[in-house]
Formats: sequence, structure tokens, C-alpha cells
Amino acid sequence: MEIGVQTTVPTEKSDVFVATKTPTTFSLDSIINFARGDPMLYEPYWKNKADRCKMVILGDELMSYFSNALNLCWFLMPELDHAIRKLHRVAGNAETDDRFIIVGNGSTQTFQALLYALSSPGQPEPISVVAATPFYSSYPEETEFLQSGLYKWAGDANCFDKDGAYVEVVTSPNNPDGSIRATVVNREGGNSIHDLAYYWPQYTPITHKADHDVMLFTFSKATGHAGSRIGWAIIKDKAIAAKMVKFVEVSSIGVSKEAQFRAATILGVISEDCQNLGLEEENFFEYGRRMMSDRWKKLREVVMKSNGAFVLPEYPRDYCKFTGKCTDSNPAFAWLRCKEGLNCEKLLRDECRLITRGGTSFGVEETYSRVSMLCSDAEFYFMLERLSTIKN
Amino acid sequence: MEIGVQTTVPTEKSDVFVATKTPTTFSLDSIINFARGDPMLYEPYWKNKADRCKMVILGDELMSYFSNALNLCWFLMPELDHAIRKLHRVAGNAETDDRFIIVGNGSTQTFQALLYALSSPGQPEPISVVAATPFYSSYPEETEFLQSGLYKWAGDANCFDKDGAYVEVVTSPNNPDGSIRATVVNREGGNSIHDLAYYWPQYTPITHKADHDVMLFTFSKATGHAGSRIGWAIIKDKAIAAKMVKFVEVSSIGVSKEAQFRAATILGVISEDCQNLGLEEENFFEYGRRMMSDRWKKLREVVMKSNGAFVLPEYPRDYCKFTGKCTDSNPAFAWLRCKEGLNCEKLLRDECRLITRGGTSFGVEETYSRVSMLCSDAEFYFMLERLSTIKN
Repeated sequence: MEIGVQTTVPTEKSDVFVATKTPTTFSLDSIINFARGDPMLYEPYWKNKADRCKMVILGDELMSYFSNALNLCWFLMPELDHAIRKLHRVAGNAETDDRFIIVGNGSTQTFQALLYALSSPGQPEPISVVAATPFYSSYPEETEFLQSGLYKWAGDANCFDKDGAYVEVVTSPNNPDGSIRATVVNREGGNSIHDLAYYWPQYTPITHKADHDVMLFTFSKATGHAGSRIGWAIIKDKAIAAKMVKFVEVSSIGVSKEAQFRAATILGVISEDCQNLGLEEENFFEYGRRMMSDRWKKLREVVMKSNGAFVLPEYPRDYCKFTGKCTDSNPAFAWLRCKEGLNCEKLLRDECRLITRGGTSFGVEETYSRVSMLCSDAEFYFMLERLSTIKN
Repeated sequence: MEIGVQTTVPTEKSDVFVATKTPTTFSLDSIINFARGDPMLYEPYWKNKADRCKMVILGDELMSYFSNALNLCWFLMPELDHAIRKLHRVAGNAETDDRFIIVGNGSTQTFQALLYALSSPGQPEPISVVAATPFYSSYPEETEFLQSGLYKWAGDANCFDKDGAYVEVVTSPNNPDGSIRATVVNREGGNSIHDLAYYWPQYTPITHKADHDVMLFTFSKATGHAGSRIGWAIIKDKAIAAKMVKFVEVSSIGVSKEAQFRAATILGVISEDCQNLGLEEENFFEYGRRMMSDRWKKLREVVMKSNGAFVLPEYPRDYCKFTGKCTDSNPAFAWLRCKEGLNCEKLLRDECRLITRGGTSFGVEETYSRVSMLCSDAEFYFMLERLSTIKN
């Protein structure tokens, strides 16, 4: 695995970063990339479970387009459908009873399937898609890149004042700032997409079973398997679910079965461990929570010692139904703010040789920048070391 | 694997068909679906190679978004890149030297990435996308379903007379009719997409190494592994390749690594067998050609005995550089024509209880209908039996 070392400055806005120059070995001069969210943090955990999560596929298996021709989502493997529902029951984070599960090539495709499903052809103008700032930097691009006549990006939900139909995207815990969110527009004719990619016990207390009409999750942030490209939606309304299926059908005729099978295997192992009361080691969520909590403590120490050069948001503790105790929020991204008038992304790049993603990508001021907390250990400790060189 | 038995009439236009009612067991009353192109024909071959093509993935493998951060197509696994180039060299069907390989979630996504790559934002109107009739029935839908401002479907290339930029899609051998094709518009400002999904030795003589600027291939039609959703483009121009990468990045942040790894394994086995001069059994292409040739002979016998109720196209024999002899064309679809004034799709449904896809889906008269030749043996023999009941 490459270690995210870049010798150039990124220009990409999407959530991964494409190298354009040859990475060097990991030296003190290297520019390290924390702009992307490649979740390598969990790799050591899965190394310990390497064999138990082993997947074997023979040459003649999984050949057909179809996974279950009788299911509305005909390309969803029943094994994955089952594993998703079971994991949500075990984690207690989302209602799946009487809901449709729609699988996509990452939650990226699933999000776009929803824009298609929540819009209608033949309208006088495209439906407005909004999100409260700071919003996930890829939403505007995913909404706009094909210049669709069905939907268009309309910016900050807090400033949205048009009448008629709209779609509000609510990410909770939020990317980039980790806040717990609800819809802000709340007007007639609106639909909301609840992106719950980070609503898992390692990131935030599970305070309730989410029960929205439209919810999105992704394998990459749940377990760290970003290379598999598996996302899923939990959908109440059959017509919306059917339109999403149509979108995935026309875009890619379904989703790789190998990836679905692997996701089913790994989600199954997590559920099994969580239900095993005699388990001697930590289950995945406990491991993830301990890792994230440890990283956040270390980061807060460094930020405190910066004497105000950087500030981090504070998160309330809350009772987590999954762990059965009061827990901290440990978001997947750190939302750093530097002193008024400074460009945080530029400061981190110039002074610390750290590539992060600046506030303007998320619809807010450049005093903010987002740093991934899901990187590998080696990257994380380099980041701490470099951040600690900046003091007020 | 479901056997394509339907109790309802399909309304879908894309190349697969979604069941809406419970399939029954395979009885004489069953309606059998040949409208879709699920390539189950090759399953017995891969059953024999089940272990040799076995893929094993451990829990901690293939986790990152990135496959090769130094490559333009950063999500393409080097193993797949290598296997694709090697197979094309072995089959002699396409030039890959000094070309970029861009992988997609099926050639469906790769085609849409090309529409994006060959169009430009900020033009006064969307670029026209055309194909000579009969054309693959999914092209219009894939081009139009998001009502993009970048590109629009403009129908039959033979009737296209607008000035300015355009994209012509050339499928050769053609889906649905198996004909060998070249561009028909040939005007200044045009780009062409050469969809060579069926340019493999089992379907047609390999008369030359295709050398177009933009070529598309798909794992599903090359080997029958439709469930993996792997397609690839071979691209001469770096700027076009880079725009395709951007499309796949924004649409789905890459392509499942499990599927890529599996495709690499299976394409590798085919190449190895083809290069093994001491191989005692048939290689994959020889097996496929024998199966397809046998099916076409049997179908032609039934059609001949229909006394003109049905007609099939004739294809010229040609020298195949891969096999080193003169061979027949054995297209993946049979393009049936019934008598003037009749609706072929309706006739086949009402009289034979066969679901096929009628000519109007492909931009031509309803006297035509397309029948998949890639179904399982059981389905194929049922089809022959039922077709043989229709006589002039």
C-alpha cells in the first residue's frame, strides 16, 4: 500500500487524491497527504482476522448478472442483504425492518442513484440539492459534473429559500466537522438523504436507532474496506427503491458480486463477534473506538500545546446504547481551525508539509481545514510530530 | 442460478431483464427469457477450471482506495492492467502498446465515462451521440437517462446531418445483428467509440489487430463473468483517458478490487492456456468457438425448416489470425426476421412463449427480434424446440 506521500500539491476536490508525481520514501521532507479519507487505520485489526475473513471464489462461481431475480434489487446478493440487516440490528444504529436494501458501487454511486430517484423528468427546472455548511466536499461535484437536467447543486441549506421541491443532504455525524445533525430546511415538498456513513460505535455514541426514510451507509467507513466499493441505502418507499435500482442498472448493470460476497463475509464476522458474549478479544467496534479515542486524545494534546494556533471542535459525551456506557465522539476527520485571517490548508502545507482539505471545499472559510483521522499509524504519528512544530 | 423463466412480459429496455413475478419451475408452459444477454453458456467450461481459477482474498487485503497511485488510472490494479494487455496480445484482437487501460464497472460505466470524456462543458448545446441502426438498445437510455447538458442521443448515424462535434458509437461485431462495422458519418469534428465487446475468436474471425483511438471491451462477453462488472477501455489520448478516470472517480471512486483481481486471474489463465502449445484440452476460445458454432448450426437448421417463417443474416467466412484458419461468424445474438407485416417479438412471445427483444428497441422495424445465443444449454434447447413449432 502506498503511504500517501506526495511531492505535489493536490488540486482534486473529491474525497481521494490522485498522485501525479512519483512518491518518494517516507522522509522528513515528504509531503504527506491527509486530504483523502483512505481508512487504513483498521488494517492491523483485519490482519489478525485475515484467515477468518478469508474469501474463496472458484472459477465458475458468481457468473450471472443476477443475484436474486425475485428481489426488487435484483443484483443484491441475499448474503449481503442478510449481513447488512444483521449488523444494523447488532449495532442498533438503523432500522431495517420493512425497508429495502439497495446496494451500490460505494455510497458515491448510491448517493447519485438517490438524486435520480428523488427527481422527476419533465419538470420546468432541475430539483435543488442542498446541504448545510460545512458539507462533504464531493456532494457539489457529484451533483453537477454531468450537468443533469434533473437536479442541480443549490449550496448551503441554511440559505435556501426557494419554493417547491428540494433535496436536503444531512450527514450525521457530519463530514467534515463531526457534528450531529438534522434537517434545517423543513419545508413542504422536501426530501432528505440521511448520509450515516459515520454513524457507527467507533465514531460516535449510538444514541438511537435511526429511522429516516432514506439512509446511506458505506463499507469503507464502517470497516475500512474502501477498495471493495460497496455502499448501501436503506429505503422505506418502494417507488424510490425501484428508481435507485433502475439507476444502478443503467449506470453499471449492478454491483460486483465478488465485492458483495466479501462485504457479506466481513460484516458477518463483526456481527458474530459482537454477539459472542464469551469473546476474549475486542470486537471490531470496541477496537475501532479504542483506536479513535486514543488518536483524538493525542491530537487534542498537540492542539492544546499549540497555544491557540489551532482549535478543534468539542463534542458532547452521550450514552451509547451499543456499548452501554457514556462515550466520546471520535470523528473520522479532525476539523482544524487556525487563527482568524489565516489560510489553514496553506499553513499546514507550507509549515508542516501536510496536505489537508481547506474550508472552501466544504463551503466555509479558509481558516478551517480537514485532516483525515483514518490514516495508518505511521502517517498519524508523522502528522502529530509536524503539527507540534506550530505554536502561537 | 435462476434459469430465466418469467411469468410476465418484460418492459425493461436495458440488456438485462428484471423478474417481477415468481419464476416457476422450467415447464412447457413457462415463458423463457432470451431478451437479456446473461452469458451462462461458458459456465461448464469454468466448472472444469474451478480450482485453477480459484481466488483467495484474506481479511486485510485490498483495503485501500488506491491500486497504483503512480498510474493515471490510479484505481486499476497492475495485475489486471497486465492481464488485459497480455490477453489482447495473445488473441491478436487489439493494439495495447502505448495505450492507456481504463477499467470501469462494466463496459456500461466505461461507455458513460467516454461520453463525459468526449464532451465539453460550456458548449451551446449537448454533443450528439449517434449509432447506425440497428444499434445496441441500451445506448440511447445510457445517454439520456440523466438528461445531461453535455451529451444527447441523436439516433441513427445514417441520418445524421448536423454540423459540428459528434460522437459515433460503432459496435463491431454489432449487437444485435452480428455485422462487421465501421464509422458511417466520417465528418470533421467527430469522435468514435469502438465497442469491441464481441471481437473475440469465439464470435468472429480475428482478421486484424484493432487499432482505434477509443476501444471498449468487457469481461462479461469475453469470458462470461457478467457478475463481476468489469469493463475496460483502451485509449490512445492521455487527456481523454484522464477525463474517463475523473468520471469513474466521481461516479464510484474506482472499481471493486476483488472483481479486478478475479478478472486478472481468469484472463491470465486464458492467456496461459492459449500460449501452451502442449495443452491437451481446448483453450477457452476454442471451446467457445465450438460451442457457438454448434449452436448456430442447430439454430440455422430450425430456421431453414421454418420454410421462410424466420430468416437469419448470413455472415462471410474469413481468415482468423488467432486460429490460423478460415472460420465462421457465430454472433452472441441471433437477429431473427419474420415475415413482412408481422411483429416478431410478439409472434415469439405469443406462439413460442419466448421473450426476445424486438426491432424497435434497436431503432428498426418490428419484423426483427433479437435472441440471446449465450444462454445455458437447457434454455437453448428449449428455444430450439419452441422455434421449431413455427412453420410457414
